[in-house]
Amino acid sequence: MVSLRVKATLPGIVYLVGAGPGAPDLLTLRAARLLATADIVLHDALIHPDTLLLARQARLVDVGKRANGAATDQRFIDRALIAAAARYQIVVRLKGGDPSLFARAAEELDALAAAGCEMVPGVTAALAAAAEFKMPLTRRGVARSVAFATLRQRRGARSAAPTLPRADTLMLYMARGDINGTQQALLAAGYAADTPVVCAANVAMPGATLQRATIATLTALAETDPVAPVLLGVGATFGDDFRSGEARAPQATPMRACAR
Amino acid sequence: MVSLRVKATLPGIVYLVGAGPGAPDLLTLRAARLLATADIVLHDALIHPDTLLLARQARLVDVGKRANGAATDQRFIDRALIAAAARYQIVVRLKGGDPSLFARAAEELDALAAAGCEMVPGVTAALAAAAEFKMPLTRRGVARSVAFATLRQRRGARSAAPTLPRADTLMLYMARGDINGTQQALLAAGYAADTPVVCAANVAMPGATLQRATIATLTALAETDPVAPVLLGVGATFGDDFRSGEARAPQATPMRACAR
Repeated sequence: MVSLRVKATLPGIVYLVGAGPGAPDLLTLRAARLLATADIVLHDALIHPDTLLLARQARLVDVGKRANGAATDQRFIDRALIAAAARYQIVVRLKGGDPSLFARAAEELDALAAAGCEMVPGVTAALAAAAEFKMPLTRRGVARSVAFATLRQRRGARSAAPTLPRADTLMLYMARGDINGTQQALLAAGYAADTPVVCAANVAMPGATLQRATIATLTALAETDPVAPVLLGVGATFGDDFRSGEARAPQATPMRACAR
Repeated sequence: MVSLRVKATLPGIVYLVGAGPGAPDLLTLRAARLLATADIVLHDALIHPDTLLLARQARLVDVGKRANGAATDQRFIDRALIAAAARYQIVVRLKGGDPSLFARAAEELDALAAAGCEMVPGVTAALAAAAEFKMPLTRRGVARSVAFATLRQRRGARSAAPTLPRADTLMLYMARGDINGTQQALLAAGYAADTPVVCAANVAMPGATLQRATIATLTALAETDPVAPVLLGVGATFGDDFRSGEARAPQATPMRACAR
């Protein structure tokens, strides 16, 4: 695609900023500084209130996609970003986790070709879950590769069961719902039925929980509250063999029910 | 493995902390706070001096593995962590990037079973590269999954060519050296020869560079300075079709030579 684009003509710079996995202190120093100087912040729904408080002088606009099913259309967000860049100097588009993973950043970058634009990385949920529950995602001799994927599809997508990558460790984002379909997709991707699975909910937030299963017993996982983000980890590194007692126990978070 | 471990008997708590990809302001607020209160910090070789300055009251111990080939043995680091936990209250083990990825965290967690231990996630290099060069790793309809892997093996490992995962986007860590072997491993993993490749060096540090190639032309990439960390990105999302002019150009970093 050769595009003849107009050179940056809007006064504002838009920063696509990762807010990290939930806990306000897992924000980066750079993101905190940008929030403090922002004129306007367009933010996802699940951003912690204390994180938003850092945007002391900014107008806050919730463009979250989970607001009671009344999801904000991506085209609306794209237009809102352009409008903000036309009116404000420092525009922050604050996204949960990291903006380069499952965050529609490509669409927003494309929409913002006429504005100055920068990206600021964040801690993604899989890394936060690994830290919170002391489960390294790689392990010499056991797990040399990690894949991040989601089974979520755009509405109207054709394939019923999207292909999963195959890696030693697999982290499935937005894993709530259709646990039977997830089980089938994992088996179809070549994972053995006895592969260990962990199910983390509310990572880096109060009430974070971890449940353990295997692909075979995945459907027995209990359901937790219906808005908690759920992340599934799949792979030998999550197995009993590698839980060294208390060193692996989640800290200060009771094991509670998890995802369906 | 059922282990009968002694309950935490050492006075100190060891924090395995991710320092992020290099820029001091890509540290998390939590990591900055821990550094400020640490009694001792055992750190990797490539940690930015300004990051270490945050550890105002700590004894600093460089346990980096790259110091002129005289790599610090992992068992030495494990023992040093235990010794530190016996003597100090707040011990920070500061690792580049994120501690759960390619960071030997599993070994250190195992060694620290008798000490209190926490992990603090960090921004990993792949996410920082995506942000710096405005290259989202996922893209609706193009890239639904990302894998992180390395071709580096422990010394004396048997297999000559370790298996690579297969995902829409692949990020290869520690990709310096043996570019021919990398090319072969990618082709053997099923990637098409015309798959776009980006080669990022010195991500999130001064003089960060990006080079573009395909798997077929990978061997033509120019070499850069021999200690710069190198990260390869492989996949359609890095292709010309998705570079929308200036919106994708790296900011303030000239395109320079890269890895071999």
